[in-house]
Amino acid sequence: MPVIECSDQVKKDEIFEVRVALGKEVAHPNTTEHHIRWIQLFFRGDGDKFPYQVGHFEFSAHGEAIDGPNKGPVYTHHSVGASPKISKSGVLYATALCNIHGLWESVKEIKVK
Amino acid sequence: MPVIECSDQVKKDEIFEVRVALGKEVAHPNTTEHHIRWIQLFFRGDGDKFPYQVGHFEFSAHGEAIDGPNKGPVYTHHSVGASPKISKSGVLYATALCNIHGLWESVKEIKVK
Amino acid sequence: MPVIECSDQVKKDEIFEVRVALGKEVAHPNTTEHHIRWIQLFFRGDGDKFPYQVGHFEFSAHGEAIDGPNKGPVYTHHSVGASPKISKSGVLYATALCNIHGLWESVKEIKVK
Amino acid sequence: MPVIECSDQVKKDEIFEVRVALGKEVAHPNTTEHHIRWIQLFFRGDGDKFPYQVGHFEFSAHGEAIDGPNKGPVYTHHSVGASPKISKSGVLYATALCNIHGLWESVKEIKVK
Repeated sequence: MPVIECSDQVKKDEIFEVRVALGKEVAHPNTTEHHIRWIQLFFRGDGDKFPYQVGHFEFSAHGEAIDGPNKGPVYTHHSVGASPKISKSGVLYATALCNIHGLWESVKEIKVK
Repeated sequence: MPVIECSDQVKKDEIFEVRVALGKEVAHPNTTEHHIRWIQLFFRGDGDKFPYQVGHFEFSAHGEAIDGPNKGPVYTHHSVGASPKISKSGVLYATALCNIHGLWESVKEIKVK
Repeated sequence: MPVIECSDQVKKDEIFEVRVALGKEVAHPNTTEHHIRWIQLFFRGDGDKFPYQVGHFEFSAHGEAIDGPNKGPVYTHHSVGASPKISKSGVLYATALCNIHGLWESVKEIKVK
Repeated sequence: MPVIECSDQVKKDEIFEVRVALGKEVAHPNTTEHHIRWIQLFFRGDGDKFPYQVGHFEFSAHGEAIDGPNKGPVYTHHSVGASPKISKSGVLYATALCNIHGLWESVKEIKVK
C-alpha cells in the first residue's frame, strides 16, 4: 500500500512536503517485468463534495535496455516528494498502480492550523 | 528553467534523491490561469545513444474551484522529489512545461563512483 | 460520466478501437477554468483479481494564453481513441477527472469471440 | 517515427480528429520488455513563440502479468486519436518515447480556413 508521510498539521497556504512511497515494511519489486507504475495524490477538503488531484507521478525507468530486461542503467524507485499548499483541513488520498497487481489506495487526514 | 538538485557523485546502484524545481531565483506563478504543468526527468548514460525517461510528474492542482479560478483549497507547487538509482555515469535532463510559455530544459552531469 | 464506445464483441488478440468521451448528451465545459483533465482506461479480464491500466490520456490545452484565460489558439476536447487488444473477455473501466468536480467512472463489458 | 494523420486544412474553432501512431511502414514491437510508452502532441500557432501541449497519452498495458512477461490479457497499441480545435494555422508536433530507444519526433503543418 502507498504510505503518505507528512505533518499531521500544516500552516494555511504554506507549502509543505509530502512523501508518498510504496512498501515501507516489505520492499516492492522494481524490475522491467514487475514494478510500481505511478502514484497519484488527491486532496478533499472538509465539507467539499469532490476531491482535487494534487499530482500524478509516473515512475518510468525499470532497467529496460537494448541488451534485454533488467540490463539498463537506470531504475526509478517508487517514491515521490510533492509540495502542495492547502487552505483548509481535509484528507489526502494516494493511489498507486502496480503493473501486475492493480490499484492500491491509502488515506491520511491533515489539519490546517 | 528547471533546476536539478542532487549530488554530483552517487554510489552505483544505490537510490539517491533528486529534486527538480522551477524558478529558484525568481518565483514562477502558480494560478489557475498560469502555472507549471509538469516536469519530466531523463537520464542518458555515458556512451549510450538514447535517453531513458526517469519520471513524468504532473502538478495538477492550481486553485481551480466551483466558486471560480483561484478560489480552490489546494495548489501543487512546481517541485518534485524523485529517487532513481543508476549503474553508470551520465547526464540528467529535466524538461518543464509552463501552460503558456512552453517547454524549458536543463541538464546536470552525474558521476558514479 | 465517461462514455465507452467499442464493439460488444471483439476478436481475440486483434487490435480494436475504443473511444472514450465525456458528456455525450450534455456537453461538458472546456475552458481554462473548468475542463476535463484526463481519462484513464482499465481492463479486468474475467476471473482476474486485478485490473490492468490500458492508458492514461491527459487533455492539456484549454485556451490558456499570455493574453489571459480562454484567449489561446488551442483546446483539447475530452475524447480519446485508444487501440488495445485483449485475449479474453472482461470489463473496461473508464475514469475521468474534472478539474473542479472530481472523479467519474463508467464500465462496459466486452466479449472475446 | 510518430506519424500525424489529420486534414491539412481544418475549420477555425471546430473540433477535428488527429491520429498519431508509430511505425506505419514497419511495425514497432509491443512487448513487456520493449514498447512505445507514450505519445505527446503539441501545437504552435503561426507567429507564436511557444508551443502548447495538446495531449499526453500513456500506453500502459504491454502483456505484463503475474505469470510472467507477455502472458497478460491486454496490450495497448501505440496509436491514439485526439480531438483538438484551433483558431489559427500552425504546426503540430508529436513526440514518442520508446522505452529502450528514447525520443522520436515528427511535425505536420495545419491550416485554418
